[in-house]
Amino acid sequence: MTTAPTHTDPAADYTPPPAVPDDLKDVPGLLRWETTSREEAFAHAATLTKETFTYDEVYGQFVTVHQYIDAPPQAVYDYLTDERNLNEYTYSTRDFAPTDTPGLYQGRDTLLDDETKIFLRIDGNPDALTVDMKCAWDQGEELWMVYIHRIISAETVLGKSGSVVIWTNCHHPYYDKNPHPELASSPERPWVGDTWGLFYAGHKVEIDNLKKILELRHGTAA
Amino acid sequence: MTTAPTHTDPAADYTPPPAVPDDLKDVPGLLRWETTSREEAFAHAATLTKETFTYDEVYGQFVTVHQYIDAPPQAVYDYLTDERNLNEYTYSTRDFAPTDTPGLYQGRDTLLDDETKIFLRIDGNPDALTVDMKCAWDQGEELWMVYIHRIISAETVLGKSGSVVIWTNCHHPYYDKNPHPELASSPERPWVGDTWGLFYAGHKVEIDNLKKILELRHGTAA
Repeated sequence: MTTAPTHTDPAADYTPPPAVPDDLKDVPGLLRWETTSREEAFAHAATLTKETFTYDEVYGQFVTVHQYIDAPPQAVYDYLTDERNLNEYTYSTRDFAPTDTPGLYQGRDTLLDDETKIFLRIDGNPDALTVDMKCAWDQGEELWMVYIHRIISAETVLGKSGSVVIWTNCHHPYYDKNPHPELASSPERPWVGDTWGLFYAGHKVEIDNLKKILELRHGTAA
Repeated sequence: MTTAPTHTDPAADYTPPPAVPDDLKDVPGLLRWETTSREEAFAHAATLTKETFTYDEVYGQFVTVHQYIDAPPQAVYDYLTDERNLNEYTYSTRDFAPTDTPGLYQGRDTLLDDETKIFLRIDGNPDALTVDMKCAWDQGEELWMVYIHRIISAETVLGKSGSVVIWTNCHHPYYDKNPHPELASSPERPWVGDTWGLFYAGHKVEIDNLKKILELRHGTAA
């Protein structure tokens, strides 16, 4: 009596999908190898690869800053999820203290005047190393200013120890129009959204602050 | 007999941190409100806010593309974590099939020739809606090309239904030097890293493909 081999080819019953799925045949502008030759695709890529980009092309709708930090990913996560640390690495958000609402903190943003209240909640996912800072000026009911972070092991993506931090803000419509002008610290105070065009600069400064502070504390400062 | 009030002020025992922590007093280049006035800070921000940026300034070390997609975050997550779908929305990665190693898939990348093998593992975190595609050409032992994704609820960050997808690649040193040239499909084949300078274009095309396909399937295509 012979025994059938127990090894099975894991791909034996795999059927590849069709080269062009039926419902995609008429979608305008899809760029796929089956329907756009390598030569055409590279020519198209060359047109998108401009020597220079305008500020709005890059930072009009989404503002992402990146930084390599020579500190362990878990240490970066722990630092970013502690609301007391905004005092150190941000330019102007200060003195977050607990409110009656669990997880909601109130502080000051001294960016444009001395009286502006800022509310904050930090949502972190320790497994994914994501950190979302949800905030708003003047009121804590709707936290629409969202600072989205991911911390990545630099070992994985750059082949060296440390962390990569990716930090994104999205152009929420409230930046263009304050939903609660009556809550401003004074009628003359400019709106936070008036500084949207400086978010790349402001967040680049702050992610550089973050790098300097964490590398100082971890003994890895250049 | 009177009863003490049970309400306690959650901030009553909160002591604000020092305005400038001792160890940060001598760190060069930290930009904080206590030591750099608003006028100086805004002047500095203005110098960083250039009218145009070169390609390398924006995409030299990190290539991030963003897209709004009018489909639910969970649907975007489900689509991105299914390796069969790379057949549809990528330009040239095709026919991923299981290997003997659980979770590791092998397919073809037709970007530069017809013979190049590509290996892939997809790590998703369903709570954080992160999706990391770890791949490599020619071998599946070290998956150093990492496609980092976050899916965000557009309700949270843009005040409307749908999703924002943030997709980042980092400039791993292997892009500059193939660690295994002996495994190439032919000695003449260019290296994947030779196309690093086209990653913005390539990934913009692919995230636009993703938007078109998902909005078609969700009945929200413009």
